[in-house]
Amino acid sequence: MDNFHFYSPTYFVFGKDGENQTGSMVKRFGGSKVLIHYGGGSVVRSGLLDRVKASLTAEGISFIELGGVKPNPRSGLVYEGIDLCRKENVDFILAVGGGSTIDSSKAIAAGTIYDGDFWDFYSGKRIEKALPVGTILTIAAAGSEGSPDSVITKEEGMFKRGASGDAIRPKFSILNPALTQTLPPYQSAAGITDIMAHLYERYLTNSTEVEVTDRLIEALLLTMKHEGPRVIENPDNYEARANIMWAGMMAHNNSCGVGRSQDWNSHNIEHELSALYDCAHGAGLAVTMPAVFKYVMNHNVMRFAQVAVRVWGCSMDFEHPEVTALEGINAFASFLKSIGMPSNFAELGAKEEDIPQLVETLCCGDGRDGNIYGFVKLNKEDCTNIYKMMIKKNHIY
Amino acid sequence: MDNFHFYSPTYFVFGKDGENQTGSMVKRFGGSKVLIHYGGGSVVRSGLLDRVKASLTAEGISFIELGGVKPNPRSGLVYEGIDLCRKENVDFILAVGGGSTIDSSKAIAAGTIYDGDFWDFYSGKRIEKALPVGTILTIAAAGSEGSPDSVITKEEGMFKRGASGDAIRPKFSILNPALTQTLPPYQSAAGITDIMAHLYERYLTNSTEVEVTDRLIEALLLTMKHEGPRVIENPDNYEARANIMWAGMMAHNNSCGVGRSQDWNSHNIEHELSALYDCAHGAGLAVTMPAVFKYVMNHNVMRFAQVAVRVWGCSMDFEHPEVTALEGINAFASFLKSIGMPSNFAELGAKEEDIPQLVETLCCGDGRDGNIYGFVKLNKEDCTNIYKMMIKKNHIY
Repeated sequence: MDNFHFYSPTYFVFGKDGENQTGSMVKRFGGSKVLIHYGGGSVVRSGLLDRVKASLTAEGISFIELGGVKPNPRSGLVYEGIDLCRKENVDFILAVGGGSTIDSSKAIAAGTIYDGDFWDFYSGKRIEKALPVGTILTIAAAGSEGSPDSVITKEEGMFKRGASGDAIRPKFSILNPALTQTLPPYQSAAGITDIMAHLYERYLTNSTEVEVTDRLIEALLLTMKHEGPRVIENPDNYEARANIMWAGMMAHNNSCGVGRSQDWNSHNIEHELSALYDCAHGAGLAVTMPAVFKYVMNHNVMRFAQVAVRVWGCSMDFEHPEVTALEGINAFASFLKSIGMPSNFAELGAKEEDIPQLVETLCCGDGRDGNIYGFVKLNKEDCTNIYKMMIKKNHIY
Repeated sequence: MDNFHFYSPTYFVFGKDGENQTGSMVKRFGGSKVLIHYGGGSVVRSGLLDRVKASLTAEGISFIELGGVKPNPRSGLVYEGIDLCRKENVDFILAVGGGSTIDSSKAIAAGTIYDGDFWDFYSGKRIEKALPVGTILTIAAAGSEGSPDSVITKEEGMFKRGASGDAIRPKFSILNPALTQTLPPYQSAAGITDIMAHLYERYLTNSTEVEVTDRLIEALLLTMKHEGPRVIENPDNYEARANIMWAGMMAHNNSCGVGRSQDWNSHNIEHELSALYDCAHGAGLAVTMPAVFKYVMNHNVMRFAQVAVRVWGCSMDFEHPEVTALEGINAFASFLKSIGMPSNFAELGAKEEDIPQLVETLCCGDGRDGNIYGFVKLNKEDCTNIYKMMIKKNHIY
């Protein structure tokens, strides 16, 4: 196990009607003038925004609003939010929505009190200071409610990049599983896929002697395997939603990823797809992961065999561990298909002729050196091969 | 899953030489005059205390010392520490040791800035304010390094009782697995047992639909099952120590125990044993748990069958689940014996003729109403029966 620091100071309010505690939570963390940041009309139509405002008003907290966050959130709205917060002397950013809204809120929180261009943080500069952020989560997926991370897409060049720093960890996050019961199955499935991707990205490690984090990751994967189909079958299932919601947070606050190198190449490869085609991030991951895993499997067959046995219930083939490893990848791919996720380029709206452009942006865009780094270092040829694997119609390898 | 709040803001520094960051950590959390609180001579002899002092001095932080914490820490030293901190205007408590030292430090931290008798907190009053506490952990066991809890024994009456409150959660905890490599096997085994007890106490729940926390608890139990014997066989095994150390923290910061009722009757029943006989808490738990589990098994046979199958690798007997449940309890008892833990009253130094006194203090002492509450409500007769079960020589039921 590697040396590490771990710090997850977010205060979590979990359960039914949690949004009614918004005002007291903002007060606890010192907010007096709040920007409520959100996406489309669903948080308005559902009445959630009204309940949030009522809770703030009851505590004597004033607020302004900025809606319009889109999936794969853009830098344009971040600049707008920064201007607004400076003009209105906002001292607290409240995200009401999913990962995109939270990530956009984190960017505004860091950018408002930074002299330079906020994109500096998305080009490698660590975030040291930010306005406090609170979240009210409406989809279990990104894990941004408990993480120090944010991903934003820059319109010029369509670069989708991440930033990080303890300063943008939410001060509080309100997790009410009931708020996710109205999500359509496709979005639920994309969220499930994203959570499982956060687990696999940590599972694919070059560190050794990491039994405790291996077991924790497997525990969360087993939870998703069990609860995911229950939610797809019955979107109203509060209990399954609740299990997924806590698993989604635990998958990404990094308590199961400490002390080990991590991968994140599936995320990198996917980011180009959702940036270019504006597909759901989870849907892109569903197509990307099986291809990546198959491509890098031989780097550590036993690791893939382990997850195959412990999570997917495969019998270990002690004579041919690679058979078990592949069986586990196929079991995962079949699982993703069974919950309604796409399994190839065409279903994503992606095109074979775009592959050179995807690879160029992925490996060389925004200062990259021609490779992406993770479990295995991948160069342009590797990435081309991986995108090509995603074209095939049959998801089973 | 039940509604819950979760807040675990401790900053963890994990890995080799972590103690050299003590000064910067105390500074980060605002300490300028520190009480270094510790137990016996081992932290002095090993040179650890000198390294800690050097780190504080390098940051210009002044300190005083109070040693002498004993296992099952007593109220007498807490009163002494409170007086000392008030007299010397201490603003930060630094625990260097195991659970006993950390718990004693938490009691001093709360008591120093409280007008009344600190024992009020151990008689049910919630801790709302305390001096900041930091820890340098030397044994993986109690989980106090990441928990809001403290257990102290009051000399008058030998009541062993707990207190709780977010205010006594450590601001930082330094976890260097190398510091635990010198522990003798018996103490290591007692620590392993304590960690597994923290997991079982959470596993025994009356809440339903708790897949995610069930899986997380099982993950940590599987880790202990795998790494425990490696440490007993080779105390120098840094990697196994590291896995156990993180598992010990995760077992008790409650991220795996949220949203579910918990038991804690094994702890209650054991506390009377370690209070009266001064045995190691973990050793007492090794004798207590199998008896308690057998006694309450029929309250929810499927729960015991589940842990038997998922953790202890038992084959499920679908016609007779109670057979599998019992097989799992016996597997756990055998595991505890295999790592060198006692399995009956005699090995603890406990005496059958003391049972009435044990039961009286347990069920009626310090304001209790004749019962203890948890997974199953136990009255005096139940507790008498359970203590009697511990007399038998053979640990297999």
